[in-house]
Amino acid sequence: MSEVISSGSLLEIWQGNRRLTRRVIEAFPEKELFEFSIGGMRPFSELAKELLAIAVPGLTEIAGGDTGSLSEDLQVHSKAELLQLWDEATEGINGFWPRISPERFGETIRLFGQYENTVTDSIFYFIENEIHHRGQGYVYLRALGIQPPFFWER
Amino acid sequence: MSEVISSGSLLEIWQGNRRLTRRVIEAFPEKELFEFSIGGMRPFSELAKELLAIAVPGLTEIAGGDTGSLSEDLQVHSKAELLQLWDEATEGINGFWPRISPERFGETIRLFGQYENTVTDSIFYFIENEIHHRGQGYVYLRALGIQPPFFWER
Repeated sequence: MSEVISSGSLLEIWQGNRRLTRRVIEAFPEKELFEFSIGGMRPFSELAKELLAIAVPGLTEIAGGDTGSLSEDLQVHSKAELLQLWDEATEGINGFWPRISPERFGETIRLFGQYENTVTDSIFYFIENEIHHRGQGYVYLRALGIQPPFFWER
Repeated sequence: MSEVISSGSLLEIWQGNRRLTRRVIEAFPEKELFEFSIGGMRPFSELAKELLAIAVPGLTEIAGGDTGSLSEDLQVHSKAELLQLWDEATEGINGFWPRISPERFGETIRLFGQYENTVTDSIFYFIENEIHHRGQGYVYLRALGIQPPFFWER
């Protein structure tokens, strides 16, 4: 097996994506962040709350072995509050990351008591889920007549 | 540096994502695949054509060193045609992949004559760009009242 991505690169890929998602949160007007939606989907604030509910709690489990259930019931009432939680999660991720040993990435875990996968695949899922929801956010912004940040800016 | 993802896993992550994107193409009605859009964005067929223009031509360059410019001007006029090109690209990717040596992933290339990056980062970009555009497709489908495939199905 030829390994092609280092732990440090994977963290940078995630944080680069998180920086872009932060810019998308910032691009929303306050009201539309919490209210605007298309086709019955959730407003972007709810998608961002899902990402917050996964990131640090998921890594806590991966790094420390504590298990919890997934709770997306974060109380957030303003863009400033959401951005503050986002920045705290950035620090949280950076803090937990070095505690994941190289061997740990290949181990199978049962995340949030239900999602059985390797650590690597779990972290990939976090990143993919974020890109997916952020792609939705881009459509919301375009529908609102707002130019989203450039996708390749990290 | 601890390497955490193998070349084979990265291929499987990409192809798993491509299987999901294929389901999203299939979920669109023929007409809406080529015409429906929100906020001035491209119809989903155009996004899929962009993905096709990147995947095999990009890998050709990565595996063989040939350079070309990025051309998204594929002629595709039906869903069946698009799905056929998609399946041909699936085979093309699988064919080129084993020709990328482990060392090659860390090398810097200038893709399509302009995007300078390591091979690993370039392939990540292909995958992230696909998830991003597919996320847009999910909103189009929801806006059309169509249930998209489950995101976690690969």
